Amino acid sequence: MKIYGDIKSGNCYKIKLTCDLLSLPYDWIHVDIMAGDTKTPEYLAKNAAGKIPLLELDDGRFLSESNAIINFLAHNTSLLPSDPYALAQVQQWQFFEQYSHEPFIAVARFINKYLGMPEERKAEYEKLQAGGHKALRLMESQLGKTQYLAGDKLTTADISLYAYTHVSDEGGFDLASNPNIQAWLKRVEAHPNYSAMS
Amino acid sequence: MKIYGDIKSGNCYKIKLTCDLLSLPYDWIHVDIMAGDTKTPEYLAKNAAGKIPLLELDDGRFLSESNAIINFLAHNTSLLPSDPYALAQVQQWQFFEQYSHEPFIAVARFINKYLGMPEERKAEYEKLQAGGHKALRLMESQLGKTQYLAGDKLTTADISLYAYTHVSDEGGFDLASNPNIQAWLKRVEAHPNYSAMS
Repeated sequence: MKIYGDIKSGNCYKIKLTCDLLSLPYDWIHVDIMAGDTKTPEYLAKNAAGKIPLLELDDGRFLSESNAIINFLAHNTSLLPSDPYALAQVQQWQFFEQYSHEPFIAVARFINKYLGMPEERKAEYEKLQAGGHKALRLMESQLGKTQYLAGDKLTTADISLYAYTHVSDEGGFDLASNPNIQAWLKRVEAHPNYSAMS
Repeated sequence: MKIYGDIKSGNCYKIKLTCDLLSLPYDWIHVDIMAGDTKTPEYLAKNAAGKIPLLELDDGRFLSESNAIINFLAHNTSLLPSDPYALAQVQQWQFFEQYSHEPFIAVARFINKYLGMPEERKAEYEKLQAGGHKALRLMESQLGKTQYLAGDKLTTADISLYAYTHVSDEGGFDLASNPNIQAWLKRVEAHPNYSAMS
């Protein structure tokens, strides 16, 4: 099994963390988006969307979209509930992550950390803060009711949201006013086989 | 089972279409986002995110996020494959929809159809066209290889992407150069119990 990605990307890190938590072996193939690695004909033949992460199975089949990949890897494991409603709650948080969390927190981090906060994207960066704070408020509220996002067990929903939340300071987000999120980050990090971003 | 939504919203229509294709009975409760219906304390108690659609089960449990809802409704039906890789492909297209399709095509449609193309959002509308066309190109390519997005059977991935694609002209997208998408739209519409947006 091969994973094409950049470990500094939260979306890619989700795959590494899932594999490590489940003790699944993999080969990590570094892809540098800033150098255009995802736009070569060779890469586009693997993933027409020209994005990372990308999973390549041993039989040559591919899978893209970080949350689809980790749910596939976690199929029939403790990281995914089998009860249909519980499973739907995992997906609810994952779609929330891709629509209401990542486009604010990950993009603000990208502008700051990858691009070095260029003048022409400063206004956009500032605009992203409100949406990011709203996403964090919703997580803070849920984590006041349950130990993990989709209940009292670690699931792929937590991996999806841990990825960019634990480095949200790099996008300008201060978690000081979110004690439930802070406790949850520590809870995730205490799991056997947890592995850091880099 | 109750569905809170606005039938003109593609995200809400996904739930109606799934229920109708599966002959599931439901009560539709109209929610007017422009009138502030999603920001009342009563509604926020149901869905803290203040968004539609929202599913309320007969036992009082709630579920949000359109794609999570339709996968829940389609659990153990012909609309969701049981093979883990096939299931992951369905989710791959659904995460693509929420990240790379809806934010362009649905938002352009919203600016044009709901807001009546106000002058101050014209530049944003124009900017959304490129992302929408990229999403349509990827769908066109896949639908040249398979009858439906995740293979040769109708799945919730098709419902997710049908919702806004079939009204993409309202966001300024012309499907004339996408014959595979056009044939696929007709294929979806030919299914027994298919129901139109309104």
